[in-house]
Amino acid sequence: MRIGLIGGTGPEGKGLAYRFALAGHEVIVGSRSAERAQEAASEVAEHASSANVRGAENIEAAREGEVVVLTVPFEAQAATLPALAETLDGKVVVSAGVPMAFESGRAAAVDVAEGSAAEQAQSLLPRARVIGGFQNLGARKLWGSKPLAQDVIVCGDDEDAKAQVMRLAEEIEGVRAVDGGALAMSRFVEGITVLLVSVNKRYKVTAGVKIAGLPQ
Amino acid sequence: MRIGLIGGTGPEGKGLAYRFALAGHEVIVGSRSAERAQEAASEVAEHASSANVRGAENIEAAREGEVVVLTVPFEAQAATLPALAETLDGKVVVSAGVPMAFESGRAAAVDVAEGSAAEQAQSLLPRARVIGGFQNLGARKLWGSKPLAQDVIVCGDDEDAKAQVMRLAEEIEGVRAVDGGALAMSRFVEGITVLLVSVNKRYKVTAGVKIAGLPQ
Repeated sequence: MRIGLIGGTGPEGKGLAYRFALAGHEVIVGSRSAERAQEAASEVAEHASSANVRGAENIEAAREGEVVVLTVPFEAQAATLPALAETLDGKVVVSAGVPMAFESGRAAAVDVAEGSAAEQAQSLLPRARVIGGFQNLGARKLWGSKPLAQDVIVCGDDEDAKAQVMRLAEEIEGVRAVDGGALAMSRFVEGITVLLVSVNKRYKVTAGVKIAGLPQ
Repeated sequence: MRIGLIGGTGPEGKGLAYRFALAGHEVIVGSRSAERAQEAASEVAEHASSANVRGAENIEAAREGEVVVLTVPFEAQAATLPALAETLDGKVVVSAGVPMAFESGRAAAVDVAEGSAAEQAQSLLPRARVIGGFQNLGARKLWGSKPLAQDVIVCGDDEDAKAQVMRLAEEIEGVRAVDGGALAMSRFVEGITVLLVSVNKRYKVTAGVKIAGLPQ
């Protein structure tokens, strides 16, 4: 599958691009700057030993991606998405961002009028099929070589799109996809990332989340 | 240890009372009504085959408990706690409640001005040592007989009190306590419960949470 990443040059975007490339997908790392996109794409391609990673401006990543993943920093989301709305009409768009800020070294959530970064993305991309997912995968673990051994909790109101994103998540080695319910549940999944940053600080690890008690 | 439960007659309170009794603690199930407290305590005592469970009015559970656990429904918390504030001065108080409402069958978070039920409890009990914990343990699993196989994420600003609550949590069979950081992180732990209710509905289970990637 061809996956476009919007704002994919940061650690989270590169980490996901790497794992998608490992899973055999064609990946387009998008950025405001085509040059920075190509730099990041080269890093990912080398790390994944894959010829299927390239950089492009966000609008091209949006146009070419069959599934498009938003890894743009939350504070830039509202400025970035409107220009992509028409291109993303009808597409499966995964919101992987977290509304989070650091205040004196502590992670804190940023309040979002829409409830979550995912719901904000849906309101900015009204005809895209927005699904929340991948928010809890730490960039350092993504960029590493080990299976992830954690869950990706996927939330959305379009059941077909959600199923597609769950399959995509499970192509990452060690990931189990969990259906978290409606898109409005993304708020709590995003919140887990803020909590994990706090846990990471205490335990000096890159922690993840798993849901216990699901059927095998 | 002697543990007092405030508003302990609901499924969550009885479930925790049961597990604390199994762990060998003396438990006082508190309620507005001494009669309902005694009924719930009798149920718990029988289920746990323990003579160390009794019912009492909330104020007595607050006075007698060495550690006091708040399992009062969130919507009743603001009305219940002020009368207990003086009694709870200096005590370790565990906020186990979740600000949650059901709208057309779906769980939704209730906004709390203080950020979380735990922080609201702290503001109503200004000299208590409030710690967030136990919010993610489903009542049905608590009342069952199996080890829980999930984490209790404990948050608080008083490190000694937090360590005490973490030890208490780990006395429940199958529970690992995880230090979630500051009391303000309780917001995200409480949010996990809303997400778990959604997961439970999808998968027809009583799910819990585990943090992946911690040191062994």
